[in-house]
Amino acid sequence: MAHFDLDTFLRTQQARVESLLLERAERLASSGAPPRLVESMRYSLMAGGKRLRPVLCLAFADTVARATLVSPLSGDAACALEFIHTYSLVHDDLPAMDDDDFRRGRPTNHKVYGEAMAILAGDGLLTEAFALLAHGPEPVRGALCGELAVAAGAAGMVGGQVLDTAEDRPAQLDYLVRMHRLKTGALIRAACRMGVLAGGGDAEALVRAQMYGDAVGLAFQIADDVLDVTATREELGKPAGADAEAGRFTFPAVVGLEESRRMAKEQVAQAVEAVRPLEGEDGPLAALARYVVERKF
Amino acid sequence: MAHFDLDTFLRTQQARVESLLLERAERLASSGAPPRLVESMRYSLMAGGKRLRPVLCLAFADTVARATLVSPLSGDAACALEFIHTYSLVHDDLPAMDDDDFRRGRPTNHKVYGEAMAILAGDGLLTEAFALLAHGPEPVRGALCGELAVAAGAAGMVGGQVLDTAEDRPAQLDYLVRMHRLKTGALIRAACRMGVLAGGGDAEALVRAQMYGDAVGLAFQIADDVLDVTATREELGKPAGADAEAGRFTFPAVVGLEESRRMAKEQVAQAVEAVRPLEGEDGPLAALARYVVERKF
Repeated sequence: MAHFDLDTFLRTQQARVESLLLERAERLASSGAPPRLVESMRYSLMAGGKRLRPVLCLAFADTVARATLVSPLSGDAACALEFIHTYSLVHDDLPAMDDDDFRRGRPTNHKVYGEAMAILAGDGLLTEAFALLAHGPEPVRGALCGELAVAAGAAGMVGGQVLDTAEDRPAQLDYLVRMHRLKTGALIRAACRMGVLAGGGDAEALVRAQMYGDAVGLAFQIADDVLDVTATREELGKPAGADAEAGRFTFPAVVGLEESRRMAKEQVAQAVEAVRPLEGEDGPLAALARYVVERKF
Repeated sequence: MAHFDLDTFLRTQQARVESLLLERAERLASSGAPPRLVESMRYSLMAGGKRLRPVLCLAFADTVARATLVSPLSGDAACALEFIHTYSLVHDDLPAMDDDDFRRGRPTNHKVYGEAMAILAGDGLLTEAFALLAHGPEPVRGALCGELAVAAGAAGMVGGQVLDTAEDRPAQLDYLVRMHRLKTGALIRAACRMGVLAGGGDAEALVRAQMYGDAVGLAFQIADDVLDVTATREELGKPAGADAEAGRFTFPAVVGLEESRRMAKEQVAQAVEAVRPLEGEDGPLAALARYVVERKF
């Protein structure tokens, strides 16, 4: 059996996501929304990136889908996840938050459109995510809205952001894990679960998606922290060790580099194990889990 | 037949909304969300106000509901509307937006919790609105999410906010009407339609709720502008004529005071007409429509 070709898979799936997002951005432009607002939302939405969350969502939907299922559900779910992820970046970059001027080599939203518009573009992306998910007749759309809202809300992504900015943050592993489980983990878990829901998977697939999503989400964050310590400036696109220099709260800083690597590998093994019954040996989900650690997504 | 007792009705319904909101705020506190975030969300959520949107939603739900229907749907819908309305106030008050230090006699959210937390509390309220709506098994919850997202999104409330802050805003009636239809009208319309959906009303009731909501939304905004010109400082709680002095874009400024009054009355008449087949003569919906103009809600 030939080894699964992850590079081709990723390129294909990322192009599919770009096209799905573009479709929805164009629908937005003809919705009666003010053109300047749509431009600002689209500026951040179409700024590239690896599209991890929509790719995971589509991969799960494709894996569990019965061949007869033809529905825009998984595309809507994938795009809704990226709308949410994008809004979180736009708001995180604001002067009152991280105050970043650049993202992915381009000026951040508020540097181009002003702070008021960046707040509103973020609000718009957040809200439109639910409009996308809810606009069709399928009853599962309510469940998709619920998954996304809980993952992105006060006990999910927004809560994680608050934990990350807390002044009295304790430098302890359990706090670090909890923070990341909320800040990035909840949405990655939701991406996997929403893929199963959109693809019509059963309850066992849903549980496996959750185990996979939790493990991949944590591995992703550990790998991110490790890469910051070990990568060269060229590989990273930002000064290496920037997190450590800024006194940031990272896995290598709390448990050391070797233990961080071991933890990441352990999470990947758990993720691969969780999806074997769904896709068999050597499928895209296992390859994606390994990729997240071996070469940061 | 005794005249409908609006004062008692309002007091009862507002108390009902406070209790529904408090219940949800407490559920949030035990959800795993960071306590400081919950405190900040709750600070703005429980700051009082007339609760127009939830009261309208519950009034429609009660009007169309079959007696057998027992469901937390209308309560969730009512609270989701107030979560959205509250988030919009928190974000509008930010320094980058209207830069307001006080609201309803209390310091604004960012004055108490800081700008970063106010942005996140707004994001949290916005997201939790959909979590509330989507958390149960009823298929109609998907439709409720859709109604709310479209009303609050880029071609709704967020879009209206962008139109209101546009620098090249033309001083024309059609622009003013369009701005208000998006900025406040869309959510008031959604409140009425969501009440019908939550109460299990039929398609005709939905159309009537929409006509009523559109008319009441516009009447509400015109009355607001008129009141600013005519009320005394005591009645208003802020300097009378503040809008005019600030060169703001209002109905009296664009079409004059008398024409504004005529327009508001015309909208109320349309609203009352729309709901007569639903509630008969002298019901709460007609009384609410009149109240919006006669004494600003």
